[in-house]
Amino acid sequence: MSEAKGRLFGLGVGPGDPELITLKALRLLRTSQVVAYPAAKGRKGNALTIVEAHLDPSQILLPLIYPVTTEKMPPPFNYETAMRAFYDESAEEVAAHLDAGRDVAAICEGDPFFYGSFMYLHDRLADRYETEVVPGVCSMLACASVLGAPLVYRNQTLTVLSGVLPEEELKRRLGDTEAAAIMKLGTNFTKARKVVADLGLLDRALYVERATMENQRIEPLAAVDPDTVPYFAMILVPGPRWEA
Amino acid sequence: MSEAKGRLFGLGVGPGDPELITLKALRLLRTSQVVAYPAAKGRKGNALTIVEAHLDPSQILLPLIYPVTTEKMPPPFNYETAMRAFYDESAEEVAAHLDAGRDVAAICEGDPFFYGSFMYLHDRLADRYETEVVPGVCSMLACASVLGAPLVYRNQTLTVLSGVLPEEELKRRLGDTEAAAIMKLGTNFTKARKVVADLGLLDRALYVERATMENQRIEPLAAVDPDTVPYFAMILVPGPRWEA
Repeated sequence: MSEAKGRLFGLGVGPGDPELITLKALRLLRTSQVVAYPAAKGRKGNALTIVEAHLDPSQILLPLIYPVTTEKMPPPFNYETAMRAFYDESAEEVAAHLDAGRDVAAICEGDPFFYGSFMYLHDRLADRYETEVVPGVCSMLACASVLGAPLVYRNQTLTVLSGVLPEEELKRRLGDTEAAAIMKLGTNFTKARKVVADLGLLDRALYVERATMENQRIEPLAAVDPDTVPYFAMILVPGPRWEA
Repeated sequence: MSEAKGRLFGLGVGPGDPELITLKALRLLRTSQVVAYPAAKGRKGNALTIVEAHLDPSQILLPLIYPVTTEKMPPPFNYETAMRAFYDESAEEVAAHLDAGRDVAAICEGDPFFYGSFMYLHDRLADRYETEVVPGVCSMLACASVLGAPLVYRNQTLTVLSGVLPEEELKRRLGDTEAAAIMKLGTNFTKARKVVADLGLLDRALYVERATMENQRIEPLAAVDPDTVPYFAMILVPGPRWEA
C-alpha cells in the first residue's frame, strides 16, 4: 500500500504589506506542514517576512538559498548554469517532503506566475505531484495603488518591461504602448530613466521603491539618486486618463 | 465646527473566488458604513457577489447601475457621453455619503486600477476626499493560476491587450511580445483567435472563462464555440519556458 503524497501549493503572498495576503493563501499556508521560501544567503527573504506572523512552530521551514544574486558573473561562472543546478536541487528537496506525504507551501512574494522563481519549481514538479497555485497581488498593481495612479484605462495596451532589456529595445517598446511598468531596476535605473526622458515621458512617469513595505519610498522620478535604487523599485507610466 | 468627512476606499476584491480577497480589503470593507458597487440593471454584479457573505445588514448598499453594457450604440446615442454622465452622477452619490462623514468602500472586481471602473470615480473624487486604494488579485493572474501556466519568465516582455483593438493592431502587438493576455473577448473572440492562429500561436495559447468563479470553464482555444464566449473570458499566451 503506497502512502498518499503531499500536495504542492504555490502561494502568492502579495507585494509586502502582510495584510495584502489573500484568505486562501493564508489558509493553505497555515495547513501546510512545510513552508518553502526563497532567500539570499544570510537573509530571511521578503516572502518569509510577509507571512512569519502566521506561522506555527510545528511547521518545517525549508529555505531555498539562491547561489547568486546577480546575472553578471565572471567566467568561468555562468548564471544560467548556477540557477539550473539550484532549481534542480530545490525541486528535489521539496519533492522529498511531498514523497513523505507532507504538503509544501512554496511562498512567493507577489504572484507566483508573474516573474516569480516559483515558476521553476512548478516546471519541475507540477507533472509529478498534485499542485495548486494561488494568485497574489503583484508588485505592479501594488505600485499603482500607493502612487494613487490608475494604471490602464478601457482599451489601452499595457506593456510590462524588464529594466534589464537593452536601451534600444526598452525605448522601442516604451514608445509603442499607452501604459507601462518597468521592473527590475537596481543598476538598470539610469538607462531606464534616460529612455523615459528621451521619449518625453518624465512628467507622466512615476517612481516607487518597495511598494506597501515598511520602507516604501516614493520620489519624483527626476530626483532619484541612481546609486540608491534597489532591485525592488519600479517606474510606472500610467495610461493617459480616459475622460469618461 | 465642520464635521469630519468620510474616507473613500477603492477595494480590489479579487477575480471571483471570495477567498481571493485580501485581509486588508476585507477589514476596510467591514468597517465602511457604505458599500458602493457597480452592476448592470437588474443584476447583482460580480463585485457584490464576491463579498456579500461578509456584509452586515447595517451597511448601506449603494449600487451604481451602468446605463449601457455595450460600446456599440445606435446614433444619436453615444457611449462616451452616456458613461461620462453615469460616472458624474455616481461620483456625486458617493460624495454625498463622504460629505455626511460616512466611509465608502467602492468594491472592484479584480484590481481597482487595472481596467477598473473605479478609476473614473478616483479621477473625480481623490482630490477632494481622503482616498486609499487597496490592490487586488487581477483577473489575468487568476487565469494563469487556474491554467497552471507560468505567465512571464525572467526578462520577458508581457503585453496586455484588449480584444476590442482592430485586428491589424492586435496582430502587430501580439507578434511583437513574448507573453500576452487578451482581455475583453465576448464578441471580439473570433477576431482574437484568428490573430492567434495567423501568428502560429494556437498551440501555446490558452483559454479560460470566469477564472476562479464557480462557473469557470477551461477549453482548448481551438475548440471554443465563439457564440458562447462571455466578456469575462481571456486568452493567455504564456512566455516561452525559460529552461533554468
